[in-house]
Amino acid sequence: MFERLGLIGCGLMGGSFALALKRAGLVQRVVGYSRSPASSRRARELGVIDEDVATAAQAATGADLVLLAVPVAATESTLRALQPALAADTLIMDVGSTKADVAAAAERALGERADVFVPCHPITGREVAGVEHADPHLYRGTQVIVTPTGRTPAARLEQAVAVWRALGCKVLSMPPAAHDAALAAVSHLPHLLAFAFMNSLVEQADGPSYLSMAGPGFRDFSRIAAGDPALWRDVLIANREQIGAQLRHFQQALADLQQAMDHSSSDVLMQLIERASTARAGWAGPALAPADPVPPSHV
Amino acid sequence: MFERLGLIGCGLMGGSFALALKRAGLVQRVVGYSRSPASSRRARELGVIDEDVATAAQAATGADLVLLAVPVAATESTLRALQPALAADTLIMDVGSTKADVAAAAERALGERADVFVPCHPITGREVAGVEHADPHLYRGTQVIVTPTGRTPAARLEQAVAVWRALGCKVLSMPPAAHDAALAAVSHLPHLLAFAFMNSLVEQADGPSYLSMAGPGFRDFSRIAAGDPALWRDVLIANREQIGAQLRHFQQALADLQQAMDHSSSDVLMQLIERASTARAGWAGPALAPADPVPPSHV
Repeated sequence: MFERLGLIGCGLMGGSFALALKRAGLVQRVVGYSRSPASSRRARELGVIDEDVATAAQAATGADLVLLAVPVAATESTLRALQPALAADTLIMDVGSTKADVAAAAERALGERADVFVPCHPITGREVAGVEHADPHLYRGTQVIVTPTGRTPAARLEQAVAVWRALGCKVLSMPPAAHDAALAAVSHLPHLLAFAFMNSLVEQADGPSYLSMAGPGFRDFSRIAAGDPALWRDVLIANREQIGAQLRHFQQALADLQQAMDHSSSDVLMQLIERASTARAGWAGPALAPADPVPPSHV
Repeated sequence: MFERLGLIGCGLMGGSFALALKRAGLVQRVVGYSRSPASSRRARELGVIDEDVATAAQAATGADLVLLAVPVAATESTLRALQPALAADTLIMDVGSTKADVAAAAERALGERADVFVPCHPITGREVAGVEHADPHLYRGTQVIVTPTGRTPAARLEQAVAVWRALGCKVLSMPPAAHDAALAAVSHLPHLLAFAFMNSLVEQADGPSYLSMAGPGFRDFSRIAAGDPALWRDVLIANREQIGAQLRHFQQALADLQQAMDHSSSDVLMQLIERASTARAGWAGPALAPADPVPPSHV
C-alpha cells in the first residue's frame, strides 16, 4: 500500500495506472503533473488524479511511489527535475517501450540515487492517446518486463514486481539490452513497417481510392500505425540500432519472397509462405510460465 | 432463385457461399466438387453441400449458378474442365483475390462463352482454411468488387450483383486492372510484408524467445501472415507487377523513416509518423456510397 503516487504524465498509460492502483486499493492519494497543464487538470476533473500540480518535483514531493509515463526521451530531464524532491524510500518506475536508454538516463539524472529507479515496460497500449481513454483494466493480464540494472537492489525490484502483480500483470525480468533486442523484433519493427506502409499509401494519388477498398486484413495490419507519434518517434530513435538489425533480417526475408514472386518460382514461394503461415498459426500469445515467477536467475 | 449451385472448391470461401445462399433461400440444391475428394465428402457430411461429385464438369452439369472457389492459378484448367457441361444460361462467378489474370483465364478457357463469367472478389476471409470453418455469415456486410470485362453483358453483371446483394454484400464495380492495382496496395502488399516479417523472426536463433514477448500489436500486425499458402502463392505471382510497384512505394517510404531514425532527426521523424498516424486514424473502413449503388458508369 502506498500513501501517495506521484504521477508524471497524465495520459493514457499514466492515467490507467492511477485508476488501476486506486481500484486495487493500493494508493491513498494521487498527485499528477503533465507538461501540458490542461492534461493534468482534465485528469483531476475526471477523477483519475486527486490533485494536479505545476511541476514534476511537486508531484514527487512526499510520494512513496512515482510513475514516469512520458515519452522515453523525456526521462532524463524529468528525473533531474524531480530528483531534489525524492524521499529516501521512494520507488520510481516508468512504462517506456525502450529500456537501455531509460536505464542510462536514470543513471545520469539520479547518480548515486539511481537505485530507487526500476525500469519497467508493460506491453500494452491503445491507438488513442489522452487521459480521456484511461482505463483501469488496461494493465490486467498484460506482460510487464522489468529490467533491473547492476545496481538495482533485489528488495527494490521485488517491490516493483509486487506492484505489477497486484494489478494483474505477468512479470518477466531481464537486462535492459535483452528487452530492447526482443522488442525491436516484435514491436518496434512492426510499428516502423506499419508507418512506412501507411505513408506509401497516402503519398499516391490513388491512395484515398485504394483505402476505400481496404478490408479486415488491412485494418489489423495497419492498426498500430495510428500510434502516438511522439511516443514512437522517441522509441525509434532510442532503439535505432536494434531496430536496424531487425530491419536487415526483414529486408533479407522480403528479398527472398520478392525473388520467388518475380520469377514465378511457385514451389519456393509456397515454401516461404508456408514457413510464415505455420509460424504465425503456432503463435499462442505471450508465453508465460505456469506460476508466472520472475526467473530466479534474473532477480 | 437458383435451382442448382455447382460449387467448385469446397473450402472456407466456397462452403460459406453455399451456406449463405441456402440460408437466404436462394438455391434448391448444391452439388460440390473439390480436387481433394475428402474435402467434398466432408462438405456433404457437414450439410454444406447436398451431393459431392468426382469432377468439376459433373458439378456444373445442370447448374444455373457455378461458383469457382479455387486458388486463382487453377481458374483456367477448372473452367476448361467444366466448359462442356455448361448450360446456355449458367452464371459463373469466382471469389479470387486477383482479377486481370482470372478474366484472361476465362477468355482463354471459355472463348466465345466467356460472357457467362463474371469475375468477383468478396473482400473477406479467415486465417483458417477448410470447410469445417465455413460460416453462413462470412459474406454479410462484405465489400464485393465485380470486374466485368468488355464482353460482359449488362444483364449478366446485374445478375451477379443481385446475388451478392442478396447475401448482404456491398458491391462495387470496376475494371479488372483497377481492382488489381487497388488490392495490391491494401491487401497483397500487406500480406507480403507480413510473410517477410514472420520469416525474419523465425530465421533468428532468438526468434522463439522474442515471440514469447510479443503483445497485441504483434498479434494484429502479423495476423494475415497465417493466410492459406496456396491461395497467397497464386495471388503474389498473378499480381506480381502491381505488387512490385507498391513495394517500390513502400521501400521509399521506409527509407525516409529509416534515414530520419538513423540520423536521430527528431522533427522529420515526428512528421513522418504523424502523417502515417493521421492517415490510419482517419480510415473509417471501406467507404460505401449511401445507397450502395454499383456506379452506373461501370455497369
